[in-house]
Amino acid sequence: MIDVYSWATPNGHKVHIMLAECGLPYRAHPVNIGAGDQFKPEFLAISPNNKIPAIVDPDGPDGEPISLFESGAILLYLAGKTGRFLPSTVRGRYETLEWLMFQMGGVGPMLGQAHHFRIYAPEKLPYAIDRYTNEAKRLYGVMDKRLAKSKYIAGNEYTIADIAIFPWLRSWKNQGIDWADYPHLKGWFDEIAARPAVQRGVEVLADLRKPLVDSQARDVLFGKQQYERR
Amino acid sequence: MIDVYSWATPNGHKVHIMLAECGLPYRAHPVNIGAGDQFKPEFLAISPNNKIPAIVDPDGPDGEPISLFESGAILLYLAGKTGRFLPSTVRGRYETLEWLMFQMGGVGPMLGQAHHFRIYAPEKLPYAIDRYTNEAKRLYGVMDKRLAKSKYIAGNEYTIADIAIFPWLRSWKNQGIDWADYPHLKGWFDEIAARPAVQRGVEVLADLRKPLVDSQARDVLFGKQQYERR
Repeated sequence: MIDVYSWATPNGHKVHIMLAECGLPYRAHPVNIGAGDQFKPEFLAISPNNKIPAIVDPDGPDGEPISLFESGAILLYLAGKTGRFLPSTVRGRYETLEWLMFQMGGVGPMLGQAHHFRIYAPEKLPYAIDRYTNEAKRLYGVMDKRLAKSKYIAGNEYTIADIAIFPWLRSWKNQGIDWADYPHLKGWFDEIAARPAVQRGVEVLADLRKPLVDSQARDVLFGKQQYERR
Repeated sequence: MIDVYSWATPNGHKVHIMLAECGLPYRAHPVNIGAGDQFKPEFLAISPNNKIPAIVDPDGPDGEPISLFESGAILLYLAGKTGRFLPSTVRGRYETLEWLMFQMGGVGPMLGQAHHFRIYAPEKLPYAIDRYTNEAKRLYGVMDKRLAKSKYIAGNEYTIADIAIFPWLRSWKNQGIDWADYPHLKGWFDEIAARPAVQRGVEVLADLRKPLVDSQARDVLFGKQQYERR
């Protein structure tokens, strides 16, 4: 059984959704990133970048255990293991990789910055808020345009690129988005949201995640304590 | 011959270095992101996210042409095409993917934000400067720790993960980095920098790139004009 070290954030949801979509049995272990669990040595051993999610699959390549970090690599691994949600043609695979990379390099990090400056940062900085709200709108526009002519983000099939993008768009309110501006993307979003495996995936560990109310949790999450401890 | 639509930035360098390492013949077409070339319809047709680099290979899968965007996907494509710089074992491939994703999701976007707030932003915002300088230091620390026990970032072989990370670290000065804090990473950096193909790669289109001196170029690059044009 696969062990998943994770938290109910967009990057965690990706893996929880993929596991549910593939029907793979797994155990989810909470890594409370508000309490600093990501800096514990036992987590670092499998996730050298201190980030969730990470997995350990006792039945990896050649039947030997494998541990993996980075949600994009985990999605590709699980797709390779099961033969699911990655097109069978070489061309289709590269198309999926392009949009998966678009999520990893753009949608994730930039919407993450939008969340930070719009919601979590202790100072409200108009320049930074505008910068990331504009980038969020631009990214939504790119996806809307794509989905005007493509059923799913990477083509006609539902793939790990859709699974990677969807969880980030659930926080559209925190990104300053008005869905009315992105009708094609909204149609895609509603379709993905209605999938039973997606609905199960986003609930994993969700009851453990509390709003970031206290400043100590904020300091841990945004690295201040880590630096003070050095 | 492969056509590369690109600019002399870290994401462009990745592909120029990979092509040089593989000895693949190519034509580099400048996409001047300071002048707004990335918004031209002919570029958008191959790069729907308005970003460099993109490539067109007339000799793609099944002998048919293929176009690709996102530097991470292009590196994987070129590795697949040539059988170079990606380990031959399944386990080695996933290890390379993990660190490639670490670059795509962390090193690239976060060092990019460090450049923005430390160098290019018209306002100096101490909170944002601290945030991204701290994250740069954290990322350098993760890589230094890794390279203390591993010859290359993904293991014993030089791979596309090294090629993806290297160009971002050339701008260490703009990221507030003191190399003395990262001796293992510095040793790796110097070794990569000495490779002839790397030296050729970073020179591609480099003479065309001028410093961002005028505010109009800055507005184009950071999306203001794009929004005004809507």
